[in-house]
Amino acid sequence: MTPKINFTPGPSQLYFTVEDHVRQAFKDGIPSISHRSKTFEHISKEATDGLRQLLDIPSTHFIYFTGSANEIWERILQNLVAERSFHFVNGSFSKRFFEIGQLLNKKPVKLEVEFGIGFTDIPSIDEGVELTGVTHNETSSGVVTPPEFIYALKDKYPNTLMAVDAVSSLPYPSFDFTKIDTAFFSVQKGFGLPAGLGVWIVNEKCLAKADQLLSKGISIGSFHNLPSLHSHALKNQTPETPNVLGIYLLGKVVQDMLRRGGDIIRKETEYKAAILYKALNSHPLLSAFVQNTSWQSKTVIVAHCGEHTERLTKFLIEKGMQPGDGYGASKKTQLRFANFPTHSKEQFELLVDSLEKFS
Amino acid sequence: MTPKINFTPGPSQLYFTVEDHVRQAFKDGIPSISHRSKTFEHISKEATDGLRQLLDIPSTHFIYFTGSANEIWERILQNLVAERSFHFVNGSFSKRFFEIGQLLNKKPVKLEVEFGIGFTDIPSIDEGVELTGVTHNETSSGVVTPPEFIYALKDKYPNTLMAVDAVSSLPYPSFDFTKIDTAFFSVQKGFGLPAGLGVWIVNEKCLAKADQLLSKGISIGSFHNLPSLHSHALKNQTPETPNVLGIYLLGKVVQDMLRRGGDIIRKETEYKAAILYKALNSHPLLSAFVQNTSWQSKTVIVAHCGEHTERLTKFLIEKGMQPGDGYGASKKTQLRFANFPTHSKEQFELLVDSLEKFS
Repeated sequence: MTPKINFTPGPSQLYFTVEDHVRQAFKDGIPSISHRSKTFEHISKEATDGLRQLLDIPSTHFIYFTGSANEIWERILQNLVAERSFHFVNGSFSKRFFEIGQLLNKKPVKLEVEFGIGFTDIPSIDEGVELTGVTHNETSSGVVTPPEFIYALKDKYPNTLMAVDAVSSLPYPSFDFTKIDTAFFSVQKGFGLPAGLGVWIVNEKCLAKADQLLSKGISIGSFHNLPSLHSHALKNQTPETPNVLGIYLLGKVVQDMLRRGGDIIRKETEYKAAILYKALNSHPLLSAFVQNTSWQSKTVIVAHCGEHTERLTKFLIEKGMQPGDGYGASKKTQLRFANFPTHSKEQFELLVDSLEKFS
Repeated sequence: MTPKINFTPGPSQLYFTVEDHVRQAFKDGIPSISHRSKTFEHISKEATDGLRQLLDIPSTHFIYFTGSANEIWERILQNLVAERSFHFVNGSFSKRFFEIGQLLNKKPVKLEVEFGIGFTDIPSIDEGVELTGVTHNETSSGVVTPPEFIYALKDKYPNTLMAVDAVSSLPYPSFDFTKIDTAFFSVQKGFGLPAGLGVWIVNEKCLAKADQLLSKGISIGSFHNLPSLHSHALKNQTPETPNVLGIYLLGKVVQDMLRRGGDIIRKETEYKAAILYKALNSHPLLSAFVQNTSWQSKTVIVAHCGEHTERLTKFLIEKGMQPGDGYGASKKTQLRFANFPTHSKEQFELLVDSLEKFS
């Protein structure tokens, strides 16, 4: 029996309207439409127009669809880096971004800090670095890289492309896209959708960089290279037959979120995070794993539970709530709680009440 | 209003059980399960075990999931070719496979024949060619490359890897996998599933070749390179968060097809193809575009309709049937009819009856 409320950080609980949208999609024959039809173009445009509005994406930036965020890590390094990228590594996912550079025979460099730690001081970055990769929300540790850090980094190195992994934070953050050249997420986290779709936001500087690599004879991939994604996106199409149903559902859920209002979603996220951090820090047996408040993620909240981890997991499951395991080596001492738009205030209040009763 | 019967060759009509399986998936919470859970491993194993049985895939071959068949074109050339591949080109899709080699800075060569023509004589292939790419069913023209041609080619060049694009033919063909090193398809055609999933069948020789490229310092991609796909597949997992719902639906539809029986599906496919080709060739205004019977596709049947194309399209739509447009430049003179397992004998009989009434 699956608990009713799913706090795992991804795939997470579905956005509460998804099942209705799936039913409508089948009624309208969406899963078998051609990806070269007007109907598809309309569906694709609804999703990208909606995202543009919800996330305040300016007209300098374009939106493309891929199979996953993993794929976007690869496409970023393939399309935007001839030789050298610089990665801020503070957990498993930021490290993976760096490693993908190595696998592509680029020469990535990294600044690595301990698990649970974030970044404060802007480091010196070599002139030859073409792109910096920052993980806005490190899903493994619950550490956030404050947007102010990202903007200060871009201000110091304006000619270096800024790539932001926002996989487990969007739609919460309200980014200043004049300081971000490319950002991306996958739909099974904050958007509460079935997995199998990555969303890649890319500006004109990135398109120019890909062209530059191509003119130097460097391969930037094939069907999903930036020129191919871009020329198709201009027609609201994709190079390949994409996850049409996924794109349809994204458009519908984004419309639902717009009706609720981006600001309300942000305020509710902050309220839910605040009551959970408070409950953890005032608990005799538990604490917030990330203690520095400027690094505390609002969207993936990690509890240090020590020897009580297994018992707390069972306790919550009995109350109908599924916590996420700690990541990797922290599985036995930590629990992770996703705080996404689909998680209601009432669900968080129930979680907090339950934690208070745990002894 | 969408016609009830969809004969477009892809995405095509859904397999008739899909909607029920989607409903059950939501009931069971499948769209939000973790891709690192036992439940996912079970779902993934059900799909690959079922495919192995339905398509008679021997234990020398492994099955991996990707985002699309487009991605598999890229991964094949990235993982299995250091320099030179040889492509049999007779339409838009076989040509695209060749072009992807160029985009990856490999040195692909091609043997190209006219649109509507197939291959009969085994050509001479240079010793340096590492892989031959054959499109079993050219979706654009309705020309099939007979499996006997593929096997004879492999017999003549046993050390060259044989890659078969079976995108719009499987599960119809019963391949001899001892003569095929890698094959692939996407689920929105013969399997009648929502788009957004590619299936890649790969043997041990391919894995060894990818390792060889890697040891030479050639990049074979990152998260979806063969060693990464393989090590995850051994645990019934995937490197990235995949299209979990898509893999679940594939497993369920394959079980449905197994219950019906692969041989029955093949015989019905042949019956439906036979009556449609007969109707086309005995029609005063229409004909089969591919006249050479050994090249006539059983799964994508192309009608030459000339000046009657637009009128026939309307005529069929009025009767509740959606034909597929001719591909590219043939849009105004041809129609394509998918003959997939979801298309019933009754639906084909209705199509044939309607064609006979068209004058």
